[in-house]
Amino acid sequence: MKAARYYGKEDIRIEQVPEPTVGSGQIKVGQHVNNDLHEYLGGPNFCPASQHPITGETIPVTLGHEFSGVIKDIGPGVTGFKIGQACAVQPTIFCGHCAACVGGAENVCHAGGFIGLSGGGGGLSEAVCVNATHVFPLPEGLELETGALVEPLSVAWHALSAAPEISPSSTVLVIGGGPIGLAMILCLKAKGVETIIVSEIAASRQNFAKQFGATQVVNPIEEDVKKVVLTLSNGKGADVAFDCAGVPASIKSACTAVKAKGTVVNVAIWEKEIPFNPNWLTSKESTFKSVLGYQKSDFETVIENLRTGAIKPNGMITAKIKFENVVQDGIKRLISDKDNHVKILVDVNAK
Amino acid sequence: MKAARYYGKEDIRIEQVPEPTVGSGQIKVGQHVNNDLHEYLGGPNFCPASQHPITGETIPVTLGHEFSGVIKDIGPGVTGFKIGQACAVQPTIFCGHCAACVGGAENVCHAGGFIGLSGGGGGLSEAVCVNATHVFPLPEGLELETGALVEPLSVAWHALSAAPEISPSSTVLVIGGGPIGLAMILCLKAKGVETIIVSEIAASRQNFAKQFGATQVVNPIEEDVKKVVLTLSNGKGADVAFDCAGVPASIKSACTAVKAKGTVVNVAIWEKEIPFNPNWLTSKESTFKSVLGYQKSDFETVIENLRTGAIKPNGMITAKIKFENVVQDGIKRLISDKDNHVKILVDVNAK
Repeated sequence: MKAARYYGKEDIRIEQVPEPTVGSGQIKVGQHVNNDLHEYLGGPNFCPASQHPITGETIPVTLGHEFSGVIKDIGPGVTGFKIGQACAVQPTIFCGHCAACVGGAENVCHAGGFIGLSGGGGGLSEAVCVNATHVFPLPEGLELETGALVEPLSVAWHALSAAPEISPSSTVLVIGGGPIGLAMILCLKAKGVETIIVSEIAASRQNFAKQFGATQVVNPIEEDVKKVVLTLSNGKGADVAFDCAGVPASIKSACTAVKAKGTVVNVAIWEKEIPFNPNWLTSKESTFKSVLGYQKSDFETVIENLRTGAIKPNGMITAKIKFENVVQDGIKRLISDKDNHVKILVDVNAK
Repeated sequence: MKAARYYGKEDIRIEQVPEPTVGSGQIKVGQHVNNDLHEYLGGPNFCPASQHPITGETIPVTLGHEFSGVIKDIGPGVTGFKIGQACAVQPTIFCGHCAACVGGAENVCHAGGFIGLSGGGGGLSEAVCVNATHVFPLPEGLELETGALVEPLSVAWHALSAAPEISPSSTVLVIGGGPIGLAMILCLKAKGVETIIVSEIAASRQNFAKQFGATQVVNPIEEDVKKVVLTLSNGKGADVAFDCAGVPASIKSACTAVKAKGTVVNVAIWEKEIPFNPNWLTSKESTFKSVLGYQKSDFETVIENLRTGAIKPNGMITAKIKFENVVQDGIKRLISDKDNHVKILVDVNAK
């Protein structure tokens, strides 16, 4: 079967690999649609340069961790699924026995990883076999394309769990209007939050933020984000600030604009150390949290919110491409024209 | 009356100033004993270089924010106090109407400060007038000298409130065996915590840490702190890490040694930006908090714990000096011989 495999930085190849067969407790998912491409520009970060402790694989590995598909085969011991069912797949890989897993935080498993990054196959192929526990059938009316958005929306939904104090009357600051920032807006809207302030430099992303439901969009180059936040919160500051940009200016802005006893949630992955002053938090006793991935309950809740229409992902998919063109039309377009795209969908089966 | 006044970096002068008179709702406290000297080496940090928004004062200001004393006069409208009572004074200055104060966090008042640093007099003088709400009579059996330790112990007790998950079975890492780190050990012991690991470079401070009740003391130059913590926590990591050192190596060590979903509490005041990587927290979804000062309830609880003997501060006061010698014997000794001293007590009334 065809698979897009990561060999290293800017080296992704579409190759023929053996089609996997389902083992005990597994489900084979095919006809994938995917939307994750932006992970493959650098690295290897998540892809294993040396043997991954759980999958045992080393690069090259098959890519694709944000994907949906159709059930093609069901392994021994699996009940409750049907061939042909459309589903989303939670790509979390975890060991099940480290202190984090035992404590119920398998998303931060000491040896953890992701299907489609760490080995174990991936969505950018014609078929992948995954544990049935990771397969979430899509309710009637939810398209396969929407199913491919469950993963990034679950990242945002999981980030909300770091700030359980959020209520409809909260003032929430989202820094960065990229895919994660926009997913945050959709999830905050689903929670009924009325005041969502988005800080974003790029005009096209500012427009996405407005379209997705931001109450106010600030350009941090032109305006003082803290001042805008104070004005919209009666001088209090943001109850919660989500840093979805992950640059030195964004972490400072988040810490500065948050209220006394407020919460900053980092949803970005950082490449290197950056300048930080704990006093930004001390003077207000605000809390800095950081999140990674999602849990099963996040996948379930996002799917339910998509079903009811509480999360409205219309407009997240800004282009659709064929599998053969994944590098040229997908990855390279995301590099050259990233501000005009949120998610580019790859249909593995499109001819 | 005599007062030690801060004019600027390394410029503290003992001068004659008018003795204050009590206003409505105030109490005059005299015969002070003090133990805070280390604040005055740099700055002005907390001392107001320009007019303080609440006290209206500018340097020079009278110093002394860690002090106890005896009630000398009681102002109109104050009930429940007696002339001659020994008491500790909570030096928190707050406005009472900003968002932080209204939210019950007057310790992070937007315009806040400290008696003895921000104006309003201080303990390094023969008398100071403070609001009766800030005066805590010492129970019978508690000496005036112990009363002067209530403030630094309240800093540590307040830091515990940032990690309410701490229980006797917790593994707690304290980084830094200076006065705050040692106060943390005493408060953790009072909470019944059995596993207190202290990371400290200086041999004399390591000895203080052992004497104060640390389960294990690690020299981070010689040993891998994370490894020691993992060994003592069955591979889990510290439930909570308190950074009482405030140097780039300590924040990284705290973030590295804490468990998945654990809490890092910064109790240090930082001078400038330092290198930080949010990924230290992301990979474990651990939380970074930072604390400032204390609240009334912290003062009350510390005094009660001193009364019952749950907090045993014996050995915290390593020298006693006369008021006249505050610069030569106090401040300069703390600079030249800081590892051999925890708190140096100044008795304003000693002849």
